[in-house]
Amino acid sequence: MAASPWKSLIRFKDAQGKIQYGEPLDSEFSRATVFSGPDVFSLNKTSDIADVKELLASCEPSAILCIGLNYRDHAIECNFPIPEYPILFLKTPNSLTSAHARIPIPPQSSQVDYENELCILTRRPIKDATLSSLQSNLSDYILAYTVGNDVSARDWQMGARSGGQFSYAKSYDGFCPVGPALVAAEQIREPQQLKMRTRVNGSTVQDGTTGDMIFGIAELLEFLSRGRTIERGTLVMTGTPNGVGMFRKRGPVWLGKGDVVECEIEQVGTLRNEFF
Amino acid sequence: MAASPWKSLIRFKDAQGKIQYGEPLDSEFSRATVFSGPDVFSLNKTSDIADVKELLASCEPSAILCIGLNYRDHAIECNFPIPEYPILFLKTPNSLTSAHARIPIPPQSSQVDYENELCILTRRPIKDATLSSLQSNLSDYILAYTVGNDVSARDWQMGARSGGQFSYAKSYDGFCPVGPALVAAEQIREPQQLKMRTRVNGSTVQDGTTGDMIFGIAELLEFLSRGRTIERGTLVMTGTPNGVGMFRKRGPVWLGKGDVVECEIEQVGTLRNEFF
Repeated sequence: MAASPWKSLIRFKDAQGKIQYGEPLDSEFSRATVFSGPDVFSLNKTSDIADVKELLASCEPSAILCIGLNYRDHAIECNFPIPEYPILFLKTPNSLTSAHARIPIPPQSSQVDYENELCILTRRPIKDATLSSLQSNLSDYILAYTVGNDVSARDWQMGARSGGQFSYAKSYDGFCPVGPALVAAEQIREPQQLKMRTRVNGSTVQDGTTGDMIFGIAELLEFLSRGRTIERGTLVMTGTPNGVGMFRKRGPVWLGKGDVVECEIEQVGTLRNEFF
Repeated sequence: MAASPWKSLIRFKDAQGKIQYGEPLDSEFSRATVFSGPDVFSLNKTSDIADVKELLASCEPSAILCIGLNYRDHAIECNFPIPEYPILFLKTPNSLTSAHARIPIPPQSSQVDYENELCILTRRPIKDATLSSLQSNLSDYILAYTVGNDVSARDWQMGARSGGQFSYAKSYDGFCPVGPALVAAEQIREPQQLKMRTRVNGSTVQDGTTGDMIFGIAELLEFLSRGRTIERGTLVMTGTPNGVGMFRKRGPVWLGKGDVVECEIEQVGTLRNEFF
């Protein structure tokens, strides 16, 4: 599979309000070289440079697949058994928002929490992929990496309010910031050795590494493609390390209005979302 | 909201292999009056009549939202408590298929089961909708009804294989036949009084009515829109009555190669899928 013509790609509104893809020219994402094409899979570089008026979610996935309890320390802090298989649930598309968006605390919840997650965007349909093929050619299957925050209303996630299904608690508007950019898969040499750090109002609350995943990216895609097709442009959120607000050592700490959550993953980027 | 210009609408491939929308001219869906337009929400009748070469899934939803355990007798047969709130999970888009498609039994499962469900396709974005508005103007929110079969691999739905999350078991390729047509919402006067019947190889196995839903359609949309947007073109599968194969009186009866499942809902239509 040919490498992408961009190393890093943002989606944004330009000064005219037009939605564009572009390669950022500075770390503040204020200007970008415009890429054009029918979709994110077939973009070509243009000679245009555009001002970034508003950063958007880094992708428009056909589905948002999430893996629960995929870090040993997080499964332990949740008091759940270590999973024998990857645990799949989905977020609804309305939850998507940008890396710099303000996120509403819904009036229905008083237990809003963060989950810093490495995300992958698939490059092509994947069905019955073998582990060996995935392990040796991972970037044939993955277009890009991006950072995601699997924001979760814990008071709607478990028990009678959810019937035990996770999707409802995790699908309020804005509960899935992703970005800031797509980082081309071939730029990340060791996706299972990336440091992850989450800060709430500047204090570090999660400090992990993608090396601690129970099921690595190749194993996830193998499992998720058994007897079924992972469509092109699917976002897979690969789970979060320990340190979520629900299980802070001195008792739960929930997000409130004015709190700023930064989710950083080495080489991939940083989300910075204020809650309101 | 204006009524749709069609009463019943199918998606199909014509003799040239082109994907079209059309109003069927006969009950076998062999010919249809072609409707054209940018999407299903803004179609116009043309003077063309096309031969239906292949019936397709009746819609291309932006997400497939499913409600678990929404019929009292089914919750009881499953030995689950009656839900206090609607239970939300999603199926992945690859599971969609047509009302007449053959559905593969995946080699990973030996416990494939059916669930006949009334489905709705939303007409516009819905956020924080009130129950009274939904109850008095339901067809302002709903474009159409269609029949769905929430095919489920029970051996992957519960316990350690799923971590208790339902999505994986219900998302094999072809596990979501929908159709045969979209029936315009304004054609269905009493959506909570529709008889539902499922037959496996001609024997009736589910015999219920949409009147037995624990949470009716308006209550579901109210709950699903709290603090979040149900996007336009979302498919909502509203749950299944009792009689699924897992809980047949003389012991579980699983679907095998050659079995034919018919899911019929009064006024809406009938799915007829052979498994292979």
